[in-house]
Amino acid sequence: MEAMKDIGALARIERVLAAALAAAEAPDGPPLLAAAMRHAVFPGGARIRPRLCLAVARACGAEPASEAWALAEAAAAAIELMHCASLVHDDLPCFDDAASRRGRPAVHRAFGEPLAVLAGDALIVLGFETLLRAAAAPARQVALMVILGRSVGAPFGIAAGQAWECETEIDLAHYQRAKTGALFAAATTAGAAAAGAAPEAWRALGERLGEAYQVADDLRDMVGSAEELGKPIGRDLALGRPSAALQLGIPGAVRRLQGLADAAMAAVPAGPGAADLRALIGQEAERLLPKELACRAA
Amino acid sequence: MEAMKDIGALARIERVLAAALAAAEAPDGPPLLAAAMRHAVFPGGARIRPRLCLAVARACGAEPASEAWALAEAAAAAIELMHCASLVHDDLPCFDDAASRRGRPAVHRAFGEPLAVLAGDALIVLGFETLLRAAAAPARQVALMVILGRSVGAPFGIAAGQAWECETEIDLAHYQRAKTGALFAAATTAGAAAAGAAPEAWRALGERLGEAYQVADDLRDMVGSAEELGKPIGRDLALGRPSAALQLGIPGAVRRLQGLADAAMAAVPAGPGAADLRALIGQEAERLLPKELACRAA
Repeated sequence: MEAMKDIGALARIERVLAAALAAAEAPDGPPLLAAAMRHAVFPGGARIRPRLCLAVARACGAEPASEAWALAEAAAAAIELMHCASLVHDDLPCFDDAASRRGRPAVHRAFGEPLAVLAGDALIVLGFETLLRAAAAPARQVALMVILGRSVGAPFGIAAGQAWECETEIDLAHYQRAKTGALFAAATTAGAAAAGAAPEAWRALGERLGEAYQVADDLRDMVGSAEELGKPIGRDLALGRPSAALQLGIPGAVRRLQGLADAAMAAVPAGPGAADLRALIGQEAERLLPKELACRAA
Repeated sequence: MEAMKDIGALARIERVLAAALAAAEAPDGPPLLAAAMRHAVFPGGARIRPRLCLAVARACGAEPASEAWALAEAAAAAIELMHCASLVHDDLPCFDDAASRRGRPAVHRAFGEPLAVLAGDALIVLGFETLLRAAAAPARQVALMVILGRSVGAPFGIAAGQAWECETEIDLAHYQRAKTGALFAAATTAGAAAAGAAPEAWRALGERLGEAYQVADDLRDMVGSAEELGKPIGRDLALGRPSAALQLGIPGAVRRLQGLADAAMAAVPAGPGAADLRALIGQEAERLLPKELACRAA
């Protein structure tokens, strides 16, 4: 899976994101909003979701420089923009009240709360617009926008996932499926749909990977360091949020992460790219496990 | 312009909005988010933007029960959902900190700030999804989503308009065009596009009406009563926001409103529906002028 591990795929993702942000700016637009949106997107994190989207598109036969590939790139960027929007809103004082993100001040600290709300809003819109700007058959654009919308809004997208935290009775499975799984499932199904493959066959892979990343995030919140992560730690306990590490204990959560990685590998549909994609998942699972825990487990 | 004045059009808009909200709910979705979204949309205000969208679609020849009409209804609902989303976010403590809206507690007062942020986000997504669900040719759906996206995001949509309030130097023309004009222009151009007409010929009408509503809003903020408006008054002065009534004085703002109504009538493209549409604009202009001022002017 060249697309997920090589530098080329990452560079392409950054280029598509840069073009998307440029389209949201104009000399007679409000400059601070543009700056806040850039701050939310650059420099990025691991860009896991867009890399996954492109890896699946590649496994489904999309060739670089084809129309299918351009659409996959647009979908990958759109998904990352939605992810960045959710981080900006999640960091707001009324949610996590996080001072930092990716090692820099959170958007609401750097630009104030009003611009953080608006930058998140505008990034959501920009996600859809990025798909609309792709040179592709309208029917395929519409299919991808349906996938995108479902993964972000209500009742099953990331906004719904975050909203479960506001309920008095939280359904843990629905919470995690929506908060993390939805956008990972969008990445795999959109990658397949962009390449002209049947998207639903790729949903389970995205859902298992989403769960794995959530467990890894819970573990790092408990045993990672703020410097390493670029954001505060110990927030799940402080904010009373559901956490696999708190619920299962650290060894239990590590076992769960390993089980989910295995399940993700098993969920890769058969095909010429399957072996490469499974190998990649194995590498990612290693990367996800906090080093300290990996050493202890070894 | 039957579509804009009769009860039938309004009832249809409510029905399309109800269907849109129902699609954002599920038994296994988070119930408070669904309730907050409903609170933001029902009961509605005057539904000016969707009525304008349908009136233009009708003037461009869209026949009720046709595919073009269904698409116009979806566009009308999408535009109203975007408007409701912006009201929910504008009412947040970090912006207007408004306790009430449409005579009821604002969403952040009724459901808390986190759900108000998320309900706004989910309504933006639902706006796009409502267009995606319309039974129509994908190419026309894409064209309408381009119109919708431009009117909501950056650099020229309502999020950008609101963001001008965060700049140290505010460009008043750009501010008002984005904050109010953009969604009115979306209403007229989307109505035309849904009917298969050239949308740009209808932009000026939307922009002039948007300016007129903004001036009317500024006037009512200064001379209206909170009971009549269902929201706090005197906020422009208190929050240091640009206001035509503060800038031009009340008589000057009344003259400006009348001038804009005339300009809107002049901007109606020639065609079989033009006379009706002009008459309607005249009625709306009368309705917009606070009664007290109309009496003083008479």
